[in-house]
Amino acid sequence: MERIKKLFGIRYPIIAGGMAWCSGWELAAAVSNAGGLGLIGAGSMHPDILAGHIRKVKEATQKPFGVNVPLMHPEQEGIMNVITVEGVKIVFTSAGNPNKWTTFLHDRGIIIAHVVSSARFAEKAEKEGVDAIVAEGFEAGGHEGREETTTMTLIPLVRKATSLPLIAAGGIATGEQILAAFALGAEGVQIGSLFAASEESSAHPAFKKMITETGEGGTKVVLKSLVPVRLIKNDFFRRVEEAETRGATVDELRNLLGKGRAKRGMFEGDLVDGELEIGQSASLIDHILPAEKIMNKLVVEYDKALEQMNNCRLS
Amino acid sequence: MERIKKLFGIRYPIIAGGMAWCSGWELAAAVSNAGGLGLIGAGSMHPDILAGHIRKVKEATQKPFGVNVPLMHPEQEGIMNVITVEGVKIVFTSAGNPNKWTTFLHDRGIIIAHVVSSARFAEKAEKEGVDAIVAEGFEAGGHEGREETTTMTLIPLVRKATSLPLIAAGGIATGEQILAAFALGAEGVQIGSLFAASEESSAHPAFKKMITETGEGGTKVVLKSLVPVRLIKNDFFRRVEEAETRGATVDELRNLLGKGRAKRGMFEGDLVDGELEIGQSASLIDHILPAEKIMNKLVVEYDKALEQMNNCRLS
Repeated sequence: MERIKKLFGIRYPIIAGGMAWCSGWELAAAVSNAGGLGLIGAGSMHPDILAGHIRKVKEATQKPFGVNVPLMHPEQEGIMNVITVEGVKIVFTSAGNPNKWTTFLHDRGIIIAHVVSSARFAEKAEKEGVDAIVAEGFEAGGHEGREETTTMTLIPLVRKATSLPLIAAGGIATGEQILAAFALGAEGVQIGSLFAASEESSAHPAFKKMITETGEGGTKVVLKSLVPVRLIKNDFFRRVEEAETRGATVDELRNLLGKGRAKRGMFEGDLVDGELEIGQSASLIDHILPAEKIMNKLVVEYDKALEQMNNCRLS
Repeated sequence: MERIKKLFGIRYPIIAGGMAWCSGWELAAAVSNAGGLGLIGAGSMHPDILAGHIRKVKEATQKPFGVNVPLMHPEQEGIMNVITVEGVKIVFTSAGNPNKWTTFLHDRGIIIAHVVSSARFAEKAEKEGVDAIVAEGFEAGGHEGREETTTMTLIPLVRKATSLPLIAAGGIATGEQILAAFALGAEGVQIGSLFAASEESSAHPAFKKMITETGEGGTKVVLKSLVPVRLIKNDFFRRVEEAETRGATVDELRNLLGKGRAKRGMFEGDLVDGELEIGQSASLIDHILPAEKIMNKLVVEYDKALEQMNNCRLS
């Protein structure tokens, strides 16, 4: 944990995932002010929009914050330019190969954490020179790796594969789960869904409410022939699942998905026709809370679980 | 942990899953003699075969042992009859509704643990009067729940849903993972794949070797329209996956599966045309070891992880 806290200059080794349509400056600033690491999700932003969010988060907190950049972003040159111009110190890259940007970012003194879903990609990222690894399990929301490796199996695999500071992601929404992630070998956690449903999340209130109402089995990974993505089982999801069951082609699925589905669902609150990306941990989320309360809750739960653990001799 | 140890009368709260084609009397006796709870897997046995295994395990150990009965077993009446006649004290039921047998078994003084893959079924099982719950996550091998809930999410959900002694299963093959399961709220663990690959497992040596060679992404859940099952990605798996991708009907898939696939793969060692059921934790298993060495290794890893955990204050 100390390595993660030191690397980012934060009090708690808890990172709020930089989620498209959820992680604007309000959420990033709130998490950073509460002692974690807040990330702006550049995935859903044009470069000029991102610049505005970065300026606002700098006004709203003196604490460290970062930006998440999915490396399939069509405007990644502009995004990276804004990041350097605005003096961002921490970048999380995801959904792609970090080698394109590692030297560029390091030359500008920027710390890089890279998100992977396999030990194989963790090894590659370490060779590319990133500073930390986020290993994200199958239970996470949004886009997924093809291996479907769950957090319970993934973290020990990645721990064996790399000596870099390791952040666990996927399925984590309680302090007990943070403790479990540390037992598995992680030194920090990245939490998505719980912060997607926070007060400061820029997601639509109807989507946040739906997260709190999503129970077990309420999400599933579809579109594996395009880019696998975990969605809430709404009407749009069911149309995709039906198409896949009857053996729809990649082109049919691409047409069905169309453009702007995620924005329509998560940002505009169309719970019927929108794409609603969330993790399995939605089943553990019952309330929409301010980020600071969420952080406090996680710390209290963690401390209690750690205390109980102390007496847990096996025999 | 104390409740699980007391309920079964065992030294370590570690149960070896009662796996079809793997868990015969040799494995059950070896695990029980090493301080865990060994289970005979009745799923692949006729009643008279089971009777033979029970007699042999009673000769091979004075320690408690149990029998796992999948409740889709076509000869379950005969199986339950053998269990009572042979004086078995512990039964694990799985893959079905326990209500048919709970009273029958309890009237004969038999302890019942029931395997579920959701909090909803855990609640139901508690109402039916079972004595303990095994909650098995999506990363487990063999047959699966439809919710696809992973161990990281499932254990906290089931912990909230029931006050019964709780055993975590799915993805567990190291002492660190046992500690993680306890952090999530479990009081014991059921371990499958690791013991499927043990020396005493009755699985074919070629299958055991293949388990040790299976890496991350080497297994996947298919046959979701019949009964979802996690398999090693061999030739048979690929034929199933291709059929599903082109929208094969349930009847086509049933024909493709045919009869005796699991026996052919796991017991007879046909790695091409057989069905090879194993969990994601195969990626963490590198050696075929005797059950006693496996138990010792788990305990050493656990103790070390617990010691490291003691200093893990969050801030």
